[in-house]
Amino acid sequence: MIKEISSTQNPTVKQLVALQEKSRIRRKTGEFLIEGVREINLALDAGFQLTQLLFCSAIADAEELAALQSKLSAEVTQIEVTEEVYKKIAYRSGTEGIIASAKAKKNTLSALDLPKNPLIMVAEAPEKPGNIGALLRTADAAGVDAFILANPRTDLYNPNIIRSSVGGLFTVPVATGSTQEVIDFLKQKNIAIYTAILQEAISYEKQDFTTASALVVGTEADGLSEAWRAAAKQNIIIPMQGRLDSMNVSVAAAILIFEARRQRGFTL
Amino acid sequence: MIKEISSTQNPTVKQLVALQEKSRIRRKTGEFLIEGVREINLALDAGFQLTQLLFCSAIADAEELAALQSKLSAEVTQIEVTEEVYKKIAYRSGTEGIIASAKAKKNTLSALDLPKNPLIMVAEAPEKPGNIGALLRTADAAGVDAFILANPRTDLYNPNIIRSSVGGLFTVPVATGSTQEVIDFLKQKNIAIYTAILQEAISYEKQDFTTASALVVGTEADGLSEAWRAAAKQNIIIPMQGRLDSMNVSVAAAILIFEARRQRGFTL
Repeated sequence: MIKEISSTQNPTVKQLVALQEKSRIRRKTGEFLIEGVREINLALDAGFQLTQLLFCSAIADAEELAALQSKLSAEVTQIEVTEEVYKKIAYRSGTEGIIASAKAKKNTLSALDLPKNPLIMVAEAPEKPGNIGALLRTADAAGVDAFILANPRTDLYNPNIIRSSVGGLFTVPVATGSTQEVIDFLKQKNIAIYTAILQEAISYEKQDFTTASALVVGTEADGLSEAWRAAAKQNIIIPMQGRLDSMNVSVAAAILIFEARRQRGFTL
Repeated sequence: MIKEISSTQNPTVKQLVALQEKSRIRRKTGEFLIEGVREINLALDAGFQLTQLLFCSAIADAEELAALQSKLSAEVTQIEVTEEVYKKIAYRSGTEGIIASAKAKKNTLSALDLPKNPLIMVAEAPEKPGNIGALLRTADAAGVDAFILANPRTDLYNPNIIRSSVGGLFTVPVATGSTQEVIDFLKQKNIAIYTAILQEAISYEKQDFTTASALVVGTEADGLSEAWRAAAKQNIIIPMQGRLDSMNVSVAAAILIFEARRQRGFTL
């Protein structure tokens, strides 16, 4: 059965807008929104459970919509909305007229299913959701076994993270925890910690990353917190060859993780 | 002699705002604006000629301002402005109360002074000024011998390029030209062209970049134009290891150029 909503004052619409805008509501309900056919499909493939599928027939591609609908279990409430209602809920402009609500995963460290000899990207407290999204996109491209967010300043299901990750939030195994929890987890799993810290660092390409490795980056403004210094097996740097003394954190992380990938070999 | 301006209606103020906002005015006058003490100092070090220095004593750090003033030749007009005037001209919020106007360089290909065996980054028609700035920042960090913009869609002295390059526009030798001019230039100098094109590509880390090399990236949306295909010595790719099929252009360019730098060795 397909419900229809044409009023922006409908309580369901208000709830969906709140899910989009408010971290507090996402945490309370355990749900979040996904925009875009591609992103919704990636989330389904990753085992995310949808709760509602909203679509606006005036905007959505009929074939794509039908293909998506055929994948959904009967428990997913389908709601046809007017263009006005769609635009009220949508975070992005120019998306495809389809939005889903889904159940968030817990993203606990203990739920990570790591292979032998894993390669892990860790980011501590990135300032901006857009940076986290960019890191997730890179983490997908590098084929890391996990992306871990230490001391997160935002919830993972922030719409800007989802958008800027272009689906990487769903394709990469992700966990979050306090910095101490992340360090304890890595140590307990015998995963060597390589930290982007200037002091007593070696040039990143001189480090062997072919054994179980976690590459840890901090923020551009503050770097990494003190706990990482003691936990690190080795500090690594990208030697700056120019006049400027810093890089964008997602660019630096990409250079580091792709050097580790290069050493381990690419799957073509 | 220091002039004073307190009216936002002053013709000089209007001219400076136009330099900030309009590419057409920058092209016509051959001047542009630089905000921030650090950026102005980098531009001076790079031989840019300032024409005016505006400062707002209520905001500027007195020591930094004095240090900067001591570097200026007598031809630079110094203008003290009120906070209201400063805010009208400033592009960035929260900058340091100091803005300079300067003469743009011509950035011709023929003016590039290349060493033997150069490493060059080329970007064709990036969509966003912010992407160009990010590429320049990476180009500085990798110590490339030149950054070449082919078929630019914006003028180099766009305030958003300056801001996002965090000064890289001044520290890296930069040239622009049409795609055909850039290809002709590289061929004439016997610089091998390596293009980020999927077809018949080899994995980037299998390519030797230790001889004279230009690494060429296109846009995320359109890739590179056809002319590059014929000009390329070798197409190179970053093999995507995940589910997503694209990377951010500035991230991809960083991975490629740092692999070339790694092969050539870092200066620590």
